[in-house]
Amino acid sequence: MNTMNAKPLHHHTATEIVQAITAGKTTATAVAESCLEYIAGRDPQVQAWHYLNPELVLAQARALDKRGGIGPLQGVPVAIKDIIDTADMPTEYGTPIHKGHRPRIDATCVALTRRAGGLIMGKTVTTEFANRFPGKTMHPMDPRRTPGGSSSGSAAAVGDSMVPMGVGTQTTASTIRPAAFCGCVGYRPTWGDLRCAGVMEAAGSLDTLGLIARSVEDIALYRNVLLGVAPEPLPADSVAPRIGFCRTHIWDQCEPDTQRQIEACATKLAKAGAKISDVTLPGDFARIEEAHRWISSFEFARNRAWEIDHHWDMISETLRNNRLKDGLSCSYETYRDARAFVERCRLMLDDVFADYDVLLTPSAAGEAPIGLNSTGNASFCAIWTSAHVPAMTLPLFKGPNGLPVGVQLIGKRNSDRKVFEAARWVQRAWD
Amino acid sequence: MNTMNAKPLHHHTATEIVQAITAGKTTATAVAESCLEYIAGRDPQVQAWHYLNPELVLAQARALDKRGGIGPLQGVPVAIKDIIDTADMPTEYGTPIHKGHRPRIDATCVALTRRAGGLIMGKTVTTEFANRFPGKTMHPMDPRRTPGGSSSGSAAAVGDSMVPMGVGTQTTASTIRPAAFCGCVGYRPTWGDLRCAGVMEAAGSLDTLGLIARSVEDIALYRNVLLGVAPEPLPADSVAPRIGFCRTHIWDQCEPDTQRQIEACATKLAKAGAKISDVTLPGDFARIEEAHRWISSFEFARNRAWEIDHHWDMISETLRNNRLKDGLSCSYETYRDARAFVERCRLMLDDVFADYDVLLTPSAAGEAPIGLNSTGNASFCAIWTSAHVPAMTLPLFKGPNGLPVGVQLIGKRNSDRKVFEAARWVQRAWD
Repeated sequence: MNTMNAKPLHHHTATEIVQAITAGKTTATAVAESCLEYIAGRDPQVQAWHYLNPELVLAQARALDKRGGIGPLQGVPVAIKDIIDTADMPTEYGTPIHKGHRPRIDATCVALTRRAGGLIMGKTVTTEFANRFPGKTMHPMDPRRTPGGSSSGSAAAVGDSMVPMGVGTQTTASTIRPAAFCGCVGYRPTWGDLRCAGVMEAAGSLDTLGLIARSVEDIALYRNVLLGVAPEPLPADSVAPRIGFCRTHIWDQCEPDTQRQIEACATKLAKAGAKISDVTLPGDFARIEEAHRWISSFEFARNRAWEIDHHWDMISETLRNNRLKDGLSCSYETYRDARAFVERCRLMLDDVFADYDVLLTPSAAGEAPIGLNSTGNASFCAIWTSAHVPAMTLPLFKGPNGLPVGVQLIGKRNSDRKVFEAARWVQRAWD
Repeated sequence: MNTMNAKPLHHHTATEIVQAITAGKTTATAVAESCLEYIAGRDPQVQAWHYLNPELVLAQARALDKRGGIGPLQGVPVAIKDIIDTADMPTEYGTPIHKGHRPRIDATCVALTRRAGGLIMGKTVTTEFANRFPGKTMHPMDPRRTPGGSSSGSAAAVGDSMVPMGVGTQTTASTIRPAAFCGCVGYRPTWGDLRCAGVMEAAGSLDTLGLIARSVEDIALYRNVLLGVAPEPLPADSVAPRIGFCRTHIWDQCEPDTQRQIEACATKLAKAGAKISDVTLPGDFARIEEAHRWISSFEFARNRAWEIDHHWDMISETLRNNRLKDGLSCSYETYRDARAFVERCRLMLDDVFADYDVLLTPSAAGEAPIGLNSTGNASFCAIWTSAHVPAMTLPLFKGPNGLPVGVQLIGKRNSDRKVFEAARWVQRAWD
């Protein structure tokens, strides 16, 4: 049954799917079938999925259609990064060490998704332990290019319209960067808001979930589900936001084309009514990426203690020689001081937001780079990840090769919905 | 083989055990045998252990004796709270819902303990999901009384000299309170220092590991192991600390006998050379326990999403009608504001420590109360848990019934070793 318009169901946003199911115009089963059919044709090229069992998906979709009531995510297929526990599917953390592992219970985010009527479509490819060593996924628009990482599969699946939404995580750039590369809306929440129980800890001081979708409204909808609170649609209209244009101290790492497009965007938004002025971060922020490196490496190396002691030879050279080497050589004092330092940066950034609703800044250096051995430059995210602030990437531009380039909006801690409203305003002004 | 002095091996501290094994005066196997024999006689009365497999323990002790090298915890038997994952023993989180669950890998703290040569003795009783509904454990000195919770078994086992050290967790009072009741040295670290990967999340914004031992030196030793850094013994001597005597705004909840003893203690420490003066916390701290309630309940209720949706009928009435009811009724705004409020309290408390090395304050209201349905008043810990500061309880006093009463030392965030040094100074001055 599909009495919706000509756009295939797998192309619809989550919000559209819920509306259609609520109106009796389609079913969870029809949506799942559309997604599965499309995935079957596309995934040999994209390789977004680490585990996908069509029969399990269809059985759950049929059960959703039979169960009474309409949940806020009714029938919405969701891709789950394979470092997030699922009781009915394997969870292997991007490493052969955990081949065949089946967790006992769902992670909190998975349980809350199911409670809301969401359909867990399958597990998407992650880099090894959500770090740098890539999985098999290719960029959906150019197989020579990285989809970004570490939430590679979730971003590729959403960007390619295999599913409307995906869950990833972010410890450095692992949601915003792949979402930007794959042309998605990506969201990293205020640190601490969305529970990570049942999600592999990379570095707890920095880890958050990350949501990937094709519309800002979908992100707002899913965030409330994962907060475990009732849905609250964004207001129909918002006033023009006060925007700080923040080139950051690493602006020269940004590709010239991306620089030009973001500057043009700032000009256009100002013409559309936004108050825009340049923001320079306090000088200390030049050191925040170094602090991030020590915090993430120190914690990551300890969190992998079991794997290090039992399966050292199954860990990639990339992981051993970078993150683990850094982490195992980092003293407690260096780690502690780095943590204290980023806490001070957080408080400094709170003050910056006295004058701005959001900051406008690059999501990444440019288009997804060629090469599948790296997941790209992470620096444009590491700053904000360390600062614990909410971030959203919007797929506003195309780069010189016609591939998506994102622009990132940053909010004050705990003002995630203000970021959503500003993002929607920016998107409308841009279009 | 036991060529040590007349004190049975199970009575020795971790530091003494490592010294004796290093000197060739005993073996891990002999220590394990002593502990097992004592436990076999005592546990029917105390019920500290949820899972203990003597054959597994002895096999691992023999393997330790055979393996080359002496680790910093060589041959030290450790009790592990049963919300902490162990790959070779069940982990059931204090609930029949997870009966028989065997995790795939060790929690980080377990892996680091084994790496250091520690011997995982078994799993100790926890309250249901580390919350209020008690397990089977009784106070080792009076079976009518609670051992405190939620790390009930670890505290009872260490207090009864079944093992020298135990690992617990603290989200409210779950390490300091049972350690105080059972006559142990208990330590809750600066929030965020010791990795919790593989530990059931109760409320991540507040959760830490907690260590329980019979000496301050043992705690300092074990902390370095769990930080994943080299051992660093405390300096032989320390100068007299600057102590703030902090009765707190809930001093009237403290039993009169405990009030008198702590006041006498402060006087004695001043005579011994400590600079002591009264500290009144900023007025906002009167609201910190209320904030703690919302933060812990909001997060806890979401972290149990899977159990709520699949096994609601197997959750205790106590948990359903208190923590879960609070958490499911708490709005996001209330939760968010509570988190922002405790962050401000943390910064205020940083300032208090400009004048003090540690604060001196009650560990609990008094002796372990009679009755096994409750784990006692948690308020004297909730303040400090929310503030993310390191805390240590020392078993300095006996109450009116001859049972242990602890005194709590509180340090500034990230000054855990200063707390250890002050604790040792206080203990020596008191003795």
